Amino acid sequence: VSVDVSATGAQLQRFKEMFDGASGRQVVIPIGDASAGYLEDARGGHGNAAAMVAPRSTQEVSTIVQAATRCGLRLIAQGANTGLVAAGVAADAQTDVVLSLRGLNRPPQIDVANRSVRVDAGVLLSKLNAAAAEHGLWFPIDLASDPSVGGLIAANAAGARFVRYGDVRRNLLGLEVVLPDEQGTVLDLMNPLWKNNTALDLKQLFVGSSGSLGVITAAQLALHPRPAVCVCAVLVPADASAVVEALLALEHCASGALTAFEGMSRAAMQAALDAVPSLRNPFFDTGLPEFAVLVELSAGAGDTEGRLTELLSDALAPLVEGDVPRLSNILIGDAHRLWALRHAIPEGLRKRGSVIACDISVTRGQWAPLRSRLIEALRGRWPDLEVCDFGHVGDGGLHFNLVWPARLAQLPAREADAIRAQVFEIVVDEFGGAFSAEHGIGPRNLAYYQRFTDTKTRALSGALQRLLAPAGLGRVRFG
Amino acid sequence: VSVDVSATGAQLQRFKEMFDGASGRQVVIPIGDASAGYLEDARGGHGNAAAMVAPRSTQEVSTIVQAATRCGLRLIAQGANTGLVAAGVAADAQTDVVLSLRGLNRPPQIDVANRSVRVDAGVLLSKLNAAAAEHGLWFPIDLASDPSVGGLIAANAAGARFVRYGDVRRNLLGLEVVLPDEQGTVLDLMNPLWKNNTALDLKQLFVGSSGSLGVITAAQLALHPRPAVCVCAVLVPADASAVVEALLALEHCASGALTAFEGMSRAAMQAALDAVPSLRNPFFDTGLPEFAVLVELSAGAGDTEGRLTELLSDALAPLVEGDVPRLSNILIGDAHRLWALRHAIPEGLRKRGSVIACDISVTRGQWAPLRSRLIEALRGRWPDLEVCDFGHVGDGGLHFNLVWPARLAQLPAREADAIRAQVFEIVVDEFGGAFSAEHGIGPRNLAYYQRFTDTKTRALSGALQRLLAPAGLGRVRFG
Repeated sequence: VSVDVSATGAQLQRFKEMFDGASGRQVVIPIGDASAGYLEDARGGHGNAAAMVAPRSTQEVSTIVQAATRCGLRLIAQGANTGLVAAGVAADAQTDVVLSLRGLNRPPQIDVANRSVRVDAGVLLSKLNAAAAEHGLWFPIDLASDPSVGGLIAANAAGARFVRYGDVRRNLLGLEVVLPDEQGTVLDLMNPLWKNNTALDLKQLFVGSSGSLGVITAAQLALHPRPAVCVCAVLVPADASAVVEALLALEHCASGALTAFEGMSRAAMQAALDAVPSLRNPFFDTGLPEFAVLVELSAGAGDTEGRLTELLSDALAPLVEGDVPRLSNILIGDAHRLWALRHAIPEGLRKRGSVIACDISVTRGQWAPLRSRLIEALRGRWPDLEVCDFGHVGDGGLHFNLVWPARLAQLPAREADAIRAQVFEIVVDEFGGAFSAEHGIGPRNLAYYQRFTDTKTRALSGALQRLLAPAGLGRVRFG
Repeated sequence: VSVDVSATGAQLQRFKEMFDGASGRQVVIPIGDASAGYLEDARGGHGNAAAMVAPRSTQEVSTIVQAATRCGLRLIAQGANTGLVAAGVAADAQTDVVLSLRGLNRPPQIDVANRSVRVDAGVLLSKLNAAAAEHGLWFPIDLASDPSVGGLIAANAAGARFVRYGDVRRNLLGLEVVLPDEQGTVLDLMNPLWKNNTALDLKQLFVGSSGSLGVITAAQLALHPRPAVCVCAVLVPADASAVVEALLALEHCASGALTAFEGMSRAAMQAALDAVPSLRNPFFDTGLPEFAVLVELSAGAGDTEGRLTELLSDALAPLVEGDVPRLSNILIGDAHRLWALRHAIPEGLRKRGSVIACDISVTRGQWAPLRSRLIEALRGRWPDLEVCDFGHVGDGGLHFNLVWPARLAQLPAREADAIRAQVFEIVVDEFGGAFSAEHGIGPRNLAYYQRFTDTKTRALSGALQRLLAPAGLGRVRFG
């Protein structure tokens, strides 16, 4: 391990010296040059740091943690830097050191019989799934970005297939963590058993911990059989409350096969269609409805598209019949095209103007009244704001994203903050919902954590953090 | 709250006095008389205690916890007393107080749209499922006993439908816990959101904590659509390794519909058939095979038994064809009768002799070699011991239960301990498995926890316990 640090400062110098005399490649990299990409936030912000370290093994992470602890430097663990709350972005040019885990990326080791995979923290979700696909398996966390495994766990990511497979926590079998203490303790919790009640399940502490309780270096993940057949449809509800009726009907008839239930507002669909010319409007010439739901049923090799289509039709038939149908349309379409529309929404919103993203959730039955309430509240104060919501209605998660149109004068930052605060107040205080459904906690939303989290939870969380990470780690203080 | 304690002792007297003057019903009950049932262990042992307290609300639990903390008494939380490791059985006639939570049993509050239920800790699983059934829902933890909700969570129970629905942890949305500190802090983590990443997920700490980190008083649980159709079959594998081949074939073809995959050894089936005359041998006159697997496929109202039977046949067809078939028989049978056979096994074993129960697990691919190794190792040293294993092969869990036949002289306790130790050594040291798959940790297996758990895990677990439960609670010390 050789060192080349251009930044100065006594702490950093001492940190650097700890690696002097150790053989091997360069692990401490000066900020500037190639390391610039490690300071950019996925939402467009920019961080700062004294240096970057790039270990290639768990043992190197432990050595670095020991050195940083002794020098009073703060490590900011970073994977693929795709997080949306800046938990992995360093901030302080004097004391922060980016701990990039991209170098922990040996090929995933798949145990086909156990449906599990041992994977290093720096491996990308796409690489993990490419390896799993060779065995007809997948890790069913479906996201718009391509995060690292460590980042997935630190954020407890979820995504579009939650309704069938759950979040990262529900698919985590084992974990390896380096604790930020003086010994750089490596905690090996890597047993890939599906059932194991032999001890406190310590790995749960680090899931969704924003990289602020320990450095995740490897994991054992559950894999699932890759669906062999799939049918998608878009549903047009007669009104907002018909959405949950359709969800319950599908679960009643086809619970094991329902793998996605995604809402799309008219504005969100329009933005996607405007931005990506190759997309087709699934409603042809009838115009876009106020709201639509993308439904996916999928199953194993023993099923057929015909059978899934029948299941879908049977489940929803009662909702399209009668004098006052609850669904005004059901269009069974090409899965690839429908998902392309859904996935193009974020890009569409960015092209339309300045996006104020609100990753909220609520109990499933409260989704419709919450949506009405939010739209009404915002219309009064910001009539020019476009509500372009979409997301995971099947699990109560919603990307309640707002666009300030590019044609207008730029929205002052304090106005954007006021809008977000208004949304979160209604979500949390009036509806008991969450201001971060699946993006985790980081500097971008820490103020809401402090505002909306009860004092007992914060006190206990702070005590846990002091116990696990006495030297400090990452950007989030839970106390 | 009035008091009637016949036991004496300064601590208990002080504890009793703390309730004097409070109005209401009796909460501190002398040991003896009606409270005797609260000291019996589900495995036949007998405990001891100074008194019993029977709160009716979370606030009463908090008051009791404060009083016990101040008096230096140790509370032993107990639900329906069905645990198999004695974690809920008090032991000390001077310092232990049974905290019976059966009185926390208001009717479950079901949110149909959210598929969730708010339920008190003392509610029995059977009562919870009776309430859920009225809405076509269920809490899919399928056990031989009828535990309370608090006990389910404290043990992180799992059972026979794990392969589809997971364990209690995977189905827990919210939790209310009283911490054993001087304030009797009530931690309200009861938000029933499916997606919520707004804070550290503190409730995870108490799942599988054996009632030794906090007193669980209420929970929000996930419910699932109750299957409308179901098909069961017994498979006869050509050899032990064909079992996991059948599992993978079923998962590949019918993953969303596979809801149970339970192994039964010949000796286990024979014991069940001998014990319960109304049971039928599913193999008719062909005799019992060496090993069989009970498979269940189930689905929603949109499916049919015919369709599930087809799915099962299609999935397994490749394994019965060819010159050397991997499955020698597939018998599709009456689901009720097949499950009756499976469920009668524990009773059958008890009638056959003295049972040495080993709740073990291993990765799914290691199950067959582990089983061979265990049988071989035991045969050498204890040739009269009958291996009557059965259980959850689909998740690697196995009730590797052994019977010392009633016709022989009673097995000395130290021999039974030696047998258990031999099994666990092979499971843990040679196969990396677990000595407690789904029964949790308690006095009955704490010695194995101490022996097989690495020092780092124990040190951190002990520190967590000191943080959360400084005054002591329950029977398990994790440090």
